[in-house]
Amino acid sequence: MKHYLSIHDIDSLPDWVAEARKLKENPTAHKALGSGRTICLLFFNNSLRTRLSTQKAALNLGMEVMVMNFGSEGWSLEYEDGTLMNQGTSEHIKEAARVVSQYCDIVAIRAFALLTDKEKDEAEVVLNGFKKYASVPIVNMEGSVAHPLQALADAITLGEQNTKTRPKVVLSWAPHPKALPHAVANSFVQMMQLQDADFVITNPKGYDLNPDIVNNVPIEHDQRKACEDADFIYVKNWSSYSDYGQVLHEDSDWMMTQEKLGKAQFMHCLPVRRNVVVEDAVLDGTQSLVIEQANNRTYAAQVVLKKLLES
Amino acid sequence: MKHYLSIHDIDSLPDWVAEARKLKENPTAHKALGSGRTICLLFFNNSLRTRLSTQKAALNLGMEVMVMNFGSEGWSLEYEDGTLMNQGTSEHIKEAARVVSQYCDIVAIRAFALLTDKEKDEAEVVLNGFKKYASVPIVNMEGSVAHPLQALADAITLGEQNTKTRPKVVLSWAPHPKALPHAVANSFVQMMQLQDADFVITNPKGYDLNPDIVNNVPIEHDQRKACEDADFIYVKNWSSYSDYGQVLHEDSDWMMTQEKLGKAQFMHCLPVRRNVVVEDAVLDGTQSLVIEQANNRTYAAQVVLKKLLES
Amino acid sequence: MKHYLSIHDIDSLPDWVAEARKLKENPTAHKALGSGRTICLLFFNNSLRTRLSTQKAALNLGMEVMVMNFGSEGWSLEYEDGTLMNQGTSEHIKEAARVVSQYCDIVAIRAFALLTDKEKDEAEVVLNGFKKYASVPIVNMEGSVAHPLQALADAITLGEQNTKTRPKVVLSWAPHPKALPHAVANSFVQMMQLQDADFVITNPKGYDLNPDIVNNVPIEHDQRKACEDADFIYVKNWSSYSDYGQVLHEDSDWMMTQEKLGKAQFMHCLPVRRNVVVEDAVLDGTQSLVIEQANNRTYAAQVVLKKLLES
Repeated sequence: MKHYLSIHDIDSLPDWVAEARKLKENPTAHKALGSGRTICLLFFNNSLRTRLSTQKAALNLGMEVMVMNFGSEGWSLEYEDGTLMNQGTSEHIKEAARVVSQYCDIVAIRAFALLTDKEKDEAEVVLNGFKKYASVPIVNMEGSVAHPLQALADAITLGEQNTKTRPKVVLSWAPHPKALPHAVANSFVQMMQLQDADFVITNPKGYDLNPDIVNNVPIEHDQRKACEDADFIYVKNWSSYSDYGQVLHEDSDWMMTQEKLGKAQFMHCLPVRRNVVVEDAVLDGTQSLVIEQANNRTYAAQVVLKKLLES
Repeated sequence: MKHYLSIHDIDSLPDWVAEARKLKENPTAHKALGSGRTICLLFFNNSLRTRLSTQKAALNLGMEVMVMNFGSEGWSLEYEDGTLMNQGTSEHIKEAARVVSQYCDIVAIRAFALLTDKEKDEAEVVLNGFKKYASVPIVNMEGSVAHPLQALADAITLGEQNTKTRPKVVLSWAPHPKALPHAVANSFVQMMQLQDADFVITNPKGYDLNPDIVNNVPIEHDQRKACEDADFIYVKNWSSYSDYGQVLHEDSDWMMTQEKLGKAQFMHCLPVRRNVVVEDAVLDGTQSLVIEQANNRTYAAQVVLKKLLES
Repeated sequence: MKHYLSIHDIDSLPDWVAEARKLKENPTAHKALGSGRTICLLFFNNSLRTRLSTQKAALNLGMEVMVMNFGSEGWSLEYEDGTLMNQGTSEHIKEAARVVSQYCDIVAIRAFALLTDKEKDEAEVVLNGFKKYASVPIVNMEGSVAHPLQALADAITLGEQNTKTRPKVVLSWAPHPKALPHAVANSFVQMMQLQDADFVITNPKGYDLNPDIVNNVPIEHDQRKACEDADFIYVKNWSSYSDYGQVLHEDSDWMMTQEKLGKAQFMHCLPVRRNVVVEDAVLDGTQSLVIEQANNRTYAAQVVLKKLLES
């Protein structure tokens, strides 16, 4: 059975991007495909774009949608095997996943990293638990280590905007008052490794992403140098990976400015804290792609759901 | 672009009331109009009638509905320009409004007055923020200073029940243990100024509504005198406007009774606290219109959505 | 008007089970029946299976669904007559029930026992309040004293699995760290009294269920003796009925084991705490019916909604 848990579940990124752009031109062209089929969106964390765009994508395909805030509306789940469940958890993932998948044709799940235990986060217990026990395809609406719907939307946006055969794309760390997960950055890095681009990551020392994900992508600790002559600069905060989940500093020097942006187009997954992550001038300027990135979330979700419905 | 933010967004109240009454006779007559179109209901506050009746109205028109409790399910929004967002707010209204309006054809919003800062409440930042930045029509599901879906439902109810050319209609303040907003009273007053009626407001001293809304409507501080020979008495609590957001007293003398009601029909927007705002005898009697007022919320919302879909 | 508040609202259990099994074979065969009709699901408590399976059942019948978490999204209700409502409750059941039933064709409600006051729980104020004042059929999605959608699903499961003319069925109490309501056990006991079966209840002393529900069903305080030669063992925790709502002990000897299960098939309504209520070996073994019981929740709800739509 096919799932959509990581960008690596895409067999051909160019084909999926092309298909998403076709869906964008005629969103309801495949309304019959999802007719009589149901998607269940399970949120273990808050969501705005993902919540609405994934619903919209499913509706565009004629599907019926059931949305559930698992944490506040359901029962707390146990993920360990063999536990004597006399504490806080009321139901085991074995039962929950099997049961939920009997009520729908696709289950989409959001479950963020807790950022307290690297090994536990990387085990991706919620998504992998559902994958293991569910009888229907699972879609990752942002897990602990990946956000592949966002990365696919970003690939669509790059596909629409890019005019060069080999653009320079920079992923730049930015300051943030809270400790944030690595999921968006990880999936963007993985997606960029499937693109023909001059791709570089820039972040302060201590903020290098997981080397198993970065692979051969160059990491430049001098942000200005990294951004020189860039065509696209993707800005995102993440907490330290080596000093797991820590905010080492909030160095405001790393905020993206119009001056550092130069002639590049600006990308961010949103929500974004203005004048902390990026200055107003960038977001309010003509080089910002953030609203179109959010728009493309619908078509990213829609191509994923279409592929799963067809398989 | 048209919005429905206040009763003044209605071009002809008699025409809209007539159309709503036609919709009530055949609620699903225009099911094709909304087909393939989506409304997003964003709740920043709790809701019963508005939540269900607006959904029902949209479904009657064939629309797809996405409901979101913005506060608990999404991110807290920033409304000020130029803020350095390193505190509690995670996303700016500029991004949120633009993004949400890409996922739907109409956005409906509930965001109550906080009653701590008159100027801030009157700026109506949530609704006006969405209006300014969204690319689709905005519907007011009760803002800080207006509740025009309620007032339109009230106009429908008056239209159905009134038999006189110029009825006497009284808006009477009533006691309540909590500080309540002015939105319902404001919109009722504005709606009544579009009607041919002998309209009077009665409230204790210190509770006069915003004079810019009241205009020339007489305010009578003697409730019994105001209610004499009334055809309709609309009861509602609100906190002080001059001593903004304060509960000056909970004078139980102002509770509506069957005796004060006389032969008038009783109106209230609900929810209503029995034997505090109005005695049981009135609500359980034959002169109460409150259930029909709530029923008409569906057709008020439906005529508004129909007008927006048509425009 | 017909409602579905208890298993006794079923006129013929064999007929309903037969019809549910037909619906299971072709779930969308009656999609026209619910077209243009709306169900409102009101949750006063958390829910997973009931939330999703009842939605799914309604969608299978072509209905439109509005889901509301009454406690967190609406207003707190008053159930007493004649109250001076100047405390915590904002709206009376008289208004709420009348109003909600104007927005839909069926209202389904979950409102658990509080387990602090037997008389109050047995008055079943939420469900009975809606029944009394609503103008549409009410469906019990688990009240204080009954969970008839679960019991109907259990009857369907027994109907599918049973091969004997008179099987031996055991309802066994099991330990649990929290005080749980009696609703599931009560409805199972009532449902079994409509079946041709050798039915016995086993529980520790002090945990006998309400004698008015148990009637002539034998209660055996020796669990091993009760389970001998059973065909089906339904396991469930409940708090004390005589010492109302108390957890008298958490005697782990009462946990269901593969050894005690013998050749019987294992049933539980879920959620279930592994290795507290039942050991892993049972749930992971081939004699467990719990996933199919959950699956049958859809068809139990669907036959109920179908009957109500037809009536």
